[in-house]
Amino acid sequence: MKQKQNFLQLFNPKSIAIIGASGTKGKVGNMIAQNITSHKYAGDVFFVNPKRTKILGKKVYKSLAEIDELIDCAVVVVPGKFVEDVIKESINFCKNFVVISAGFGETGPEGHNREITLQKLAQEQNINILGPNCLGFLTPAIGLNASFAEGLPDIGQTAIISQSGALAVAVMDKAREESIGFSAVVSIGNKMQIGAAELIEYFRQDKDTDTIALYLEGVDRGQLFLKSIAKAVKDGKKIIVLKAGKTGEAQEAIALHTGSLAGSDDIFSAALEKVGAIRAESMSDFFALIRFAQYYKNPISGIASVGILTNAGGPGVLATDIVAGQEGVKMSRLSSETKSVLTKKLPAAASVHNPIDLLGDATLDRYEIGLKKLISDKTVDIILVLLTPQDQTPVDDIAKMIIQLQAKTKKLIITSFIGGQRVRVAVDNMNKSSVLHFNSPKTALSAAASFIKTRQIFSITKKTVTQDRIDFVQKIITKIKDRESLYFQECDNIAKKYNLPISKFWDITLGLDAKNHVKYPCVIKVDNPNVLHKTDRGGVILPINNLRELDKARKILLERFEENGTRIIAQPMLKIKTELIIGLKRDPVFGVVIVAGLGGIYTEIFKKVNFYISPLSIKEIQNILLNGELSFLFSGERGENSYNLDAISNIIYNMYMMGIENSQITAIDINPLLVYNDDKEDVAVDFKIVL
Amino acid sequence: MKQKQNFLQLFNPKSIAIIGASGTKGKVGNMIAQNITSHKYAGDVFFVNPKRTKILGKKVYKSLAEIDELIDCAVVVVPGKFVEDVIKESINFCKNFVVISAGFGETGPEGHNREITLQKLAQEQNINILGPNCLGFLTPAIGLNASFAEGLPDIGQTAIISQSGALAVAVMDKAREESIGFSAVVSIGNKMQIGAAELIEYFRQDKDTDTIALYLEGVDRGQLFLKSIAKAVKDGKKIIVLKAGKTGEAQEAIALHTGSLAGSDDIFSAALEKVGAIRAESMSDFFALIRFAQYYKNPISGIASVGILTNAGGPGVLATDIVAGQEGVKMSRLSSETKSVLTKKLPAAASVHNPIDLLGDATLDRYEIGLKKLISDKTVDIILVLLTPQDQTPVDDIAKMIIQLQAKTKKLIITSFIGGQRVRVAVDNMNKSSVLHFNSPKTALSAAASFIKTRQIFSITKKTVTQDRIDFVQKIITKIKDRESLYFQECDNIAKKYNLPISKFWDITLGLDAKNHVKYPCVIKVDNPNVLHKTDRGGVILPINNLRELDKARKILLERFEENGTRIIAQPMLKIKTELIIGLKRDPVFGVVIVAGLGGIYTEIFKKVNFYISPLSIKEIQNILLNGELSFLFSGERGENSYNLDAISNIIYNMYMMGIENSQITAIDINPLLVYNDDKEDVAVDFKIVL
Repeated sequence: MKQKQNFLQLFNPKSIAIIGASGTKGKVGNMIAQNITSHKYAGDVFFVNPKRTKILGKKVYKSLAEIDELIDCAVVVVPGKFVEDVIKESINFCKNFVVISAGFGETGPEGHNREITLQKLAQEQNINILGPNCLGFLTPAIGLNASFAEGLPDIGQTAIISQSGALAVAVMDKAREESIGFSAVVSIGNKMQIGAAELIEYFRQDKDTDTIALYLEGVDRGQLFLKSIAKAVKDGKKIIVLKAGKTGEAQEAIALHTGSLAGSDDIFSAALEKVGAIRAESMSDFFALIRFAQYYKNPISGIASVGILTNAGGPGVLATDIVAGQEGVKMSRLSSETKSVLTKKLPAAASVHNPIDLLGDATLDRYEIGLKKLISDKTVDIILVLLTPQDQTPVDDIAKMIIQLQAKTKKLIITSFIGGQRVRVAVDNMNKSSVLHFNSPKTALSAAASFIKTRQIFSITKKTVTQDRIDFVQKIITKIKDRESLYFQECDNIAKKYNLPISKFWDITLGLDAKNHVKYPCVIKVDNPNVLHKTDRGGVILPINNLRELDKARKILLERFEENGTRIIAQPMLKIKTELIIGLKRDPVFGVVIVAGLGGIYTEIFKKVNFYISPLSIKEIQNILLNGELSFLFSGERGENSYNLDAISNIIYNMYMMGIENSQITAIDINPLLVYNDDKEDVAVDFKIVL
Repeated sequence: MKQKQNFLQLFNPKSIAIIGASGTKGKVGNMIAQNITSHKYAGDVFFVNPKRTKILGKKVYKSLAEIDELIDCAVVVVPGKFVEDVIKESINFCKNFVVISAGFGETGPEGHNREITLQKLAQEQNINILGPNCLGFLTPAIGLNASFAEGLPDIGQTAIISQSGALAVAVMDKAREESIGFSAVVSIGNKMQIGAAELIEYFRQDKDTDTIALYLEGVDRGQLFLKSIAKAVKDGKKIIVLKAGKTGEAQEAIALHTGSLAGSDDIFSAALEKVGAIRAESMSDFFALIRFAQYYKNPISGIASVGILTNAGGPGVLATDIVAGQEGVKMSRLSSETKSVLTKKLPAAASVHNPIDLLGDATLDRYEIGLKKLISDKTVDIILVLLTPQDQTPVDDIAKMIIQLQAKTKKLIITSFIGGQRVRVAVDNMNKSSVLHFNSPKTALSAAASFIKTRQIFSITKKTVTQDRIDFVQKIITKIKDRESLYFQECDNIAKKYNLPISKFWDITLGLDAKNHVKYPCVIKVDNPNVLHKTDRGGVILPINNLRELDKARKILLERFEENGTRIIAQPMLKIKTELIIGLKRDPVFGVVIVAGLGGIYTEIFKKVNFYISPLSIKEIQNILLNGELSFLFSGERGENSYNLDAISNIIYNMYMMGIENSQITAIDINPLLVYNDDKEDVAVDFKIVL
């Protein structure tokens, strides 16, 4: 792949130039010059500055043209307005640029124009530009700090991609004391040309990278972003995403009922889940997940069994509570062999059931006996070693023993030594020696569960677009002027083309005529494209038992909705068993999104909904139905029959295809969809299409 | 109060004796002797051991009788079987004993008997015994460590009461490095005579104690425990409870539907909420709450407004997300004065809206300007200062400035310096100087919210027990033999006495007679005390439209339930609007507990229930209804009328009184209670009473 080649040169350059290097302490051009030269980077380093001759004792060039060799990567630190010229004159000598300079899209319209020009230049000239307005990048494995953040992190297998330079600095600082290493730290700044998707795609192919952790403040080109993650996860990479602005984003105008259920942040979460990425809930969660990922090398599938070793009953029970309350993990029941061996070797008062209580006076040997048995016990996937520093507890020796045993086993050992000074040395030693220690077992187990629960349900299916129904819809839509949503009759026609079951209806705007064989009891409703919430506005009257009542109600509605174009329809009264609500919206980032959940009067109270992100297959829809908020429909709760999974998933799929095939449709709402668990067919009572 | 007097002598003794002091290193009797003498304790210390003459260079007495003065507190470390004798011979010289010795209730039946004898002795002789099987206690203010845990914590205002010695040790160790101090640390061991309630009552009256933090593995005498907390909270003490065994406890046998909704752990949580205590969810939560309590001196009522100061946009937005997602706190909108001053004093690129972004190159002065404004801004209750260690950031100076400003203001400042080594010194300094620092803003804000949300709804109301209805119920119950639950007719009679609205019914076991004017359509049901889940067992047939259908259905049910005593009843078919489920159970710890929530087919799926703990008043019931899981009934969701709060709260109260007045009743179930938001009266369709 081209991108792989290019970025390899960018992040692993054999030669690097700093255009705008400075000798003045405190200036960014000086910091970067210092950072590049003060670590073990073995490539050629060139300082470029037309006004200087020596910086940090090194020769300074006037431009790249003066340098005898081609440059793999140039870091640009000149003021924003000069960036374009500098790059133009460097293009023959270098293809990869890191623009540290600010003064682009993050400032006013002038900067914005500057950024657009720069972007065009990059495209036309086929060069890579990281930034602008970024911190730079660091590649610890080659001793390269091409940023203005001090220091160089340890070498590791996690690539950090950060939209905030400050956050990258803080992560690196914190990482050092917890022995977290990085394959790369990349600040993406304004992500003009190189954004999250491009970097995920690059690090997916980097064999030194095992985990890609992203801090993002916004996502664009959602489908590309998801595709890059999906491919990376399929290749065995772990993807962790922290996104700011969960609650801050303005919700879009809400036209339809389902719209109010679909906040853009929920859609982002559903999208990550779809492709098997893990979303961090907070900065501390982000750190915890990165730390955990570094130790989580052998994926556990299904639900992980936890075996607990402790020298204090209380913490053991508390940890058991945490396991029981955490999805994705459960307490191991321990093999009978483990129990019988432990019964022989541990004191009589010890508990050999999980959690294994070694008692307060437990010394090294008891911990060793217990840990060895848990390592060999096949019922155990994860071992949690708890320790409280009693006066009799040889804390440091126990840590050493754990370090030795962890080195010999692939089974994950999580330690949690509870205390302060008394456990300090042991904890530091474990951190340095690849034993995972968490102050809080809760944080550790919740991180574990995040990774274990992750399932990729992303499915790229070849969609067969059906031209004749597109033409049919086009014909209806092109006729529509001066309104943004459709009449029930139009919706009915379109729904039928897409095999969506829609309730029978009769147009009684002008009263009953020969063609209208209304059956009683029935419901009558206003039908006007401008009336979207008809129940709330008194646009539904029921029950109607005879012609007299029907005519009276018809007149009431015509008076109540005297707007132009009001029609009145009648529908049969249907038996209600369970009401669902299914909607479609066109998300600016991820495209067609379906939201489906429990309807009826409690829709907003319970918010039992899931989001379905493009691309969708029937299989993926069924997967979400069976495991999501509506799973109770199919699990036979209280001996009830299951609802019709095929029928409901087909309705969702067909609505999805209606959105995919007709880009003028911006939203669709079925509310309610009546579903049954006997032989009755599911039916949409109300159906709205918004353009 | 007597207890106060006694415990004062116990925990603040002027003289202390160690009965069983030992000269052998490693023995508990030696550790305690060392601990008592190696700190600044200024009282008289006596070692007692008939077999020794000198320990640690001090004279050893054969018994308390030999000592010239009376002893305030005696720590007993002799083997369990000798404890009783030792206390008996000491009783004339000392009234307060701390029994460290094990070998009591925690072992087999022999130990259990020993404990019962000891308890009797304590009662008869009117002496205090802490333990047995405990770690001892520590009173830092007088330099006293009367335990076998090493060291002495800092002096502070938090009393720790722990049912696990190991946990107390770990808490003290961790506390030291986070500058948490204690007024007392008490290990309660088997809590034979002195348990949580007694100690809460004592520390409530201790002016040096501001927070009481309890680690408990079980609670008995629930009402006494709650009363002690309620009084302490009223006196301004903060109560934090960590309880092990959330999920581990066996659920009691579930006879009734509501029983399955009422796990004992949910009841414990509801009980703590009732009295204004805060429940810690995990050990790390416990630490966080204790730390927070130490700094939270000026209770904030309502919802706390948070003002955020940051030098990096990302962390600011992330913290905003946390505030928005956390009940009990909200983002301050900042006064216009604050905004205009900051606009003048900060660089143009800075954001003067909350979160205030001081920019990456923010130095001391910008932080100081921002912090001073937030301190003076009355729209701000809590200030959160975020910092990422940029190269330009004078981290330590900023910390010093915060320390100075916090000393001058009562407003709570929470700091979160994000990083490792670069923020280490600053964080240590803040910890030492009464500035609250949390690594994770999320933990800090969630702790804050726990304290802010706390409301005591405990109400001791004089219950007027009504003798005539008790006699009425007694008459019915005493007649019942060979069955544990009541016929519908009996329930109906009792319900009417308690003003509980119960659906009309007709006994049609023998078919229709002159007295039975059944109205159609109706429902017919089996009525047999042994059939508790009649719907699940096919004991309900509907609709019944005429005599022929009724007779057919009656025969079907009689065949289906051919058990002895089966009766058949008919009830009118009622319009269903909303179904509730209300039950009563007699909890072994807390007594009569009511569970009330949403009924119908989704009862188990949504679990929208609350627990109502004794003692109850109508006011407290309404408080829970209006703020709990059923609040949507009264909030006019989607323009709906409110349901009848008075009617529903009266039903709960009357059921509660039925339980209080009739101790033979162990459970009651109304399922469903049909409630309406028009003029219809609420009505219980099914009513079960279990003895």
